[in-house]
Amino acid sequence: MVDDFEKRVRSGFSKQGFMTRLDAKLVEVGLGVCRITVPYSKHVTQQHGFFHGGVTATLADNAAGFAGYSQMSADEQPLSVEFKINFVAPAEGEMLEARARVVRNGRRLKHVSVEVFAIQGGKERLVAVALATIVATSTVTQTKSK
Amino acid sequence: MVDDFEKRVRSGFSKQGFMTRLDAKLVEVGLGVCRITVPYSKHVTQQHGFFHGGVTATLADNAAGFAGYSQMSADEQPLSVEFKINFVAPAEGEMLEARARVVRNGRRLKHVSVEVFAIQGGKERLVAVALATIVATSTVTQTKSK
Amino acid sequence: MVDDFEKRVRSGFSKQGFMTRLDAKLVEVGLGVCRITVPYSKHVTQQHGFFHGGVTATLADNAAGFAGYSQMSADEQPLSVEFKINFVAPAEGEMLEARARVVRNGRRLKHVSVEVFAIQGGKERLVAVALATIVATSTVTQTKSK
Amino acid sequence: MVDDFEKRVRSGFSKQGFMTRLDAKLVEVGLGVCRITVPYSKHVTQQHGFFHGGVTATLADNAAGFAGYSQMSADEQPLSVEFKINFVAPAEGEMLEARARVVRNGRRLKHVSVEVFAIQGGKERLVAVALATIVATSTVTQTKSK
Repeated sequence: MVDDFEKRVRSGFSKQGFMTRLDAKLVEVGLGVCRITVPYSKHVTQQHGFFHGGVTATLADNAAGFAGYSQMSADEQPLSVEFKINFVAPAEGEMLEARARVVRNGRRLKHVSVEVFAIQGGKERLVAVALATIVATSTVTQTKSK
Repeated sequence: MVDDFEKRVRSGFSKQGFMTRLDAKLVEVGLGVCRITVPYSKHVTQQHGFFHGGVTATLADNAAGFAGYSQMSADEQPLSVEFKINFVAPAEGEMLEARARVVRNGRRLKHVSVEVFAIQGGKERLVAVALATIVATSTVTQTKSK
Repeated sequence: MVDDFEKRVRSGFSKQGFMTRLDAKLVEVGLGVCRITVPYSKHVTQQHGFFHGGVTATLADNAAGFAGYSQMSADEQPLSVEFKINFVAPAEGEMLEARARVVRNGRRLKHVSVEVFAIQGGKERLVAVALATIVATSTVTQTKSK
Repeated sequence: MVDDFEKRVRSGFSKQGFMTRLDAKLVEVGLGVCRITVPYSKHVTQQHGFFHGGVTATLADNAAGFAGYSQMSADEQPLSVEFKINFVAPAEGEMLEARARVVRNGRRLKHVSVEVFAIQGGKERLVAVALATIVATSTVTQTKSK
């Protein structure tokens, strides 16, 4: 069922204008796992100079989506149904990295667990944990029809 | 307790580099309510050309945070504890607008409900619903100390 | 598509041993809406004598599930994919009542918003807000197969 | 700061009428960790004879609360701020067991991760994952005053 998944995941990622805007990199994709990073800059900050919570959430959501996508068949597309994120420490550092892992690979629904780390001077610190639900859709237009 | 809240909220918003990067606007702030918009561009898209879920989540989180901030005292700062978002329709349109409302104004914890709409040709469509928890902190450095 | 939904919802509810154990009542079911109550007793308490958070969450989840079920076809069954609940006030009173409303009736996925109230002396107070995702499954055994 | 935490946790657990009603057992409590079980009976079922999702959620919430309580000081009480749960498989078995672990022990806010397993014939299966936020309150009456 899953063959060329890395190619499909990387292709999907490269088409997301928002990832380009964030200078995000897809640093790893495996069966049911995905890692995405974003470097620090003034463009991704909240009012105190940390990474904005929206950037942290974006990374978590996207890593979850692509981890789920890696276990879909070639004619399926991932859609985020919902996600939940707890911010456990200020996101301070040179880099933010989200690591997603599918905890349950259902036929249509993928349940994904994510951890987000801030990296500074080679040390990493957990800044957020998330749980996401990704659905495999046959076509995206189908989802738009209702 | 709450006096000059609009000034404080607008000042906080203007210091978020990420909001500038997104061309986001704080279109309304009231006691316990907040509305933020982001215009459509290729910089905020996912792979199918819709608004990226991370942008939708960012708007929801931020509107919740500032809605909560509007009900804090002058020496308090808002921090997102966590949020949850359900994506109920594709985010397609010229504009995305998040509308947050504090449902419970606790002394330290603010529980906030958010709806996000996509607007196209004057019509709006609900694309996401969210629930967020915002905490009032005395100083941000205090939060960073642990 | 939806005809005899009330009968199906009431039948499903009556088969839940846990609802009987809680003395829960299905007080209203309509298209996309559901209300369930639980009376106060020592059997539903936490350590301070309030309704236990688990009871509040159970009511929210169940009301969401049956609200979603009311908009499914006769050969579909509801399964809770996930839910999120914020406890906004102590659940103190004679009765607890969850009110669920489908905010997005997707073909397979139903997004449901829930409010839970504690009722005492004719007055009600919001004690929790929740968001749930319910999936329509063709048969339950299908879900058990993986 | 934390001394007699096990005694306090066990005392709190024993005062919850709802746990007695469910025949729940506190099988382990350590610093930042907690395990609670519930045996199968017709009193905890949903319409297909599985453990009710509300029971699964109750166990997750309660294990999270007591895991957080284990890291509070003697004059603090735990309150659930919110939690989120994903149901990843039908809860079928002789026993349900929730295992909670504090992932971030903040001064007031504890972020807790939970896994719930169904156990049958000595084998266990992951049926739910959850994330919870627990707050330490000085007194419960304080929380009730607003």
